[in-house]
Amino acid sequence: MKTTNSWKSFGGTLSVHEHDSSTCRCPMTFAVYTPPGEGPFPVLWYLSGLTCSWANPMEKSGLQAHAAKYGVMVVAPDTSPRGKGVADDEAYDLGQGAGFYLTATQAPWSEHYKMDVYVTEELQELVFDHFPGDPARQGVFGHSMGGHGALTLHLKNPDTYRSVSAFSPIVAPSQVPWGHKAFGAYLGEDRAKWAQYDASELVRERPSQAKILIDQGVADGFLEEQLKPELFEAACAEAGQDLTVRRHEGYDHSYYFIASFMGDHIKHHAEALRG
Amino acid sequence: MKTTNSWKSFGGTLSVHEHDSSTCRCPMTFAVYTPPGEGPFPVLWYLSGLTCSWANPMEKSGLQAHAAKYGVMVVAPDTSPRGKGVADDEAYDLGQGAGFYLTATQAPWSEHYKMDVYVTEELQELVFDHFPGDPARQGVFGHSMGGHGALTLHLKNPDTYRSVSAFSPIVAPSQVPWGHKAFGAYLGEDRAKWAQYDASELVRERPSQAKILIDQGVADGFLEEQLKPELFEAACAEAGQDLTVRRHEGYDHSYYFIASFMGDHIKHHAEALRG
Repeated sequence: MKTTNSWKSFGGTLSVHEHDSSTCRCPMTFAVYTPPGEGPFPVLWYLSGLTCSWANPMEKSGLQAHAAKYGVMVVAPDTSPRGKGVADDEAYDLGQGAGFYLTATQAPWSEHYKMDVYVTEELQELVFDHFPGDPARQGVFGHSMGGHGALTLHLKNPDTYRSVSAFSPIVAPSQVPWGHKAFGAYLGEDRAKWAQYDASELVRERPSQAKILIDQGVADGFLEEQLKPELFEAACAEAGQDLTVRRHEGYDHSYYFIASFMGDHIKHHAEALRG
Repeated sequence: MKTTNSWKSFGGTLSVHEHDSSTCRCPMTFAVYTPPGEGPFPVLWYLSGLTCSWANPMEKSGLQAHAAKYGVMVVAPDTSPRGKGVADDEAYDLGQGAGFYLTATQAPWSEHYKMDVYVTEELQELVFDHFPGDPARQGVFGHSMGGHGALTLHLKNPDTYRSVSAFSPIVAPSQVPWGHKAFGAYLGEDRAKWAQYDASELVRERPSQAKILIDQGVADGFLEEQLKPELFEAACAEAGQDLTVRRHEGYDHSYYFIASFMGDHIKHHAEALRG
């Protein structure tokens, strides 16, 4: 693991790291914010949305202020494998920058696209080997495609990620265009495979003990066609899953929205992981 | 004036505007953050550094959280005239993105580069015509080249900008390479002209009644060669100017540094402009 950059931020340290991923079979980059103090700290995994990398949350969400206040570490992985040898597509919502936190089974994607295994296994090991995180106190959150990642990784790994929240998540990829396109390409047309990566399907099979927090902007241009939080609300109601969806008038899909409610999310995780 | 974008942020509104500037003789872009509530609000002018625009502070400094909390408006002008017809240089520290908040007297710069007049006259009128700001309660702050702008515009217009602060400012441009290059190009070799735009010279002639706050990162790569806060400290001591320079171990020149102390700056201005 090579540290490529580092900055002091709110008394703690933001650092960026590159390593050769055996899972994704390419170099991968991620960032870690370590709050002031000694640790071990609770660890929050922030999963970004389409086109994003570690930089979007670390530059634009203001998360460091809150992570420093509550004494939590935040790890921001990339959103896909990247590089010249990695399959890609011209569209913003497929290929590099659009890994969808799944293991692709279809060529050409299956060679490198294994973001769920990368995040839940390889990066877990690497992070706890090098940073003062407490593996018994982990949460996961994210935005849009990364909200989908957060919900699905939590539901499939509730003992690892004990707390969960999301900003404007894709909650039912099997039922919306972004998911149709990505899942069709990465997983093929077998809908049973899709269900393994669909929070609204997963929660019916395996609701968790966590309180799920979702914030959604009502002026979000993707709300009606791609996000559809009502589908997840219905599934959670059926499954007895604890869920709070807060709808915010006037807010859109941008990091200005995320920043406005980031403090609430970090607090939500810090309280859930306390003790 | 045309509004090109707008987002809800921390209960208020961030908006971006374009207008044909009669001062700069080209289209100019600026952003305004208006906090929640009715106003009229105190107005803080944030002047950015080399290469920057309205977007850097609005995306990366986290200022909205604090402006919302203290109920102040923030205006972020661009750092120079821009566009195809505007003189430029390949270097990052001259021409577009490097206006230095002065009125250029030398060709080819004198055609468009009048950022001090633009900010203190034309943009004043435009902003108070369109936004709920209180012209009797204005402050100015900025970063690096914009810190130079903040200090000099305050010292020359203390009745307009009653409060002032800066992050890692250029405080003595006549004595450092960035200033030699820019002032030489924009103003020619007459050092008497340079002194009109040099905070360490101006403060000797006309100290203000304000308490000046400066934050400076000790790990800032520009500190020793370009910033030299000790020159301004010496000048303020001689002139009887109230100045606090806080030196922060480990912090560099980036927006991660600015964000870490933005809350203190907004509070500094809000308190100075109260009542």
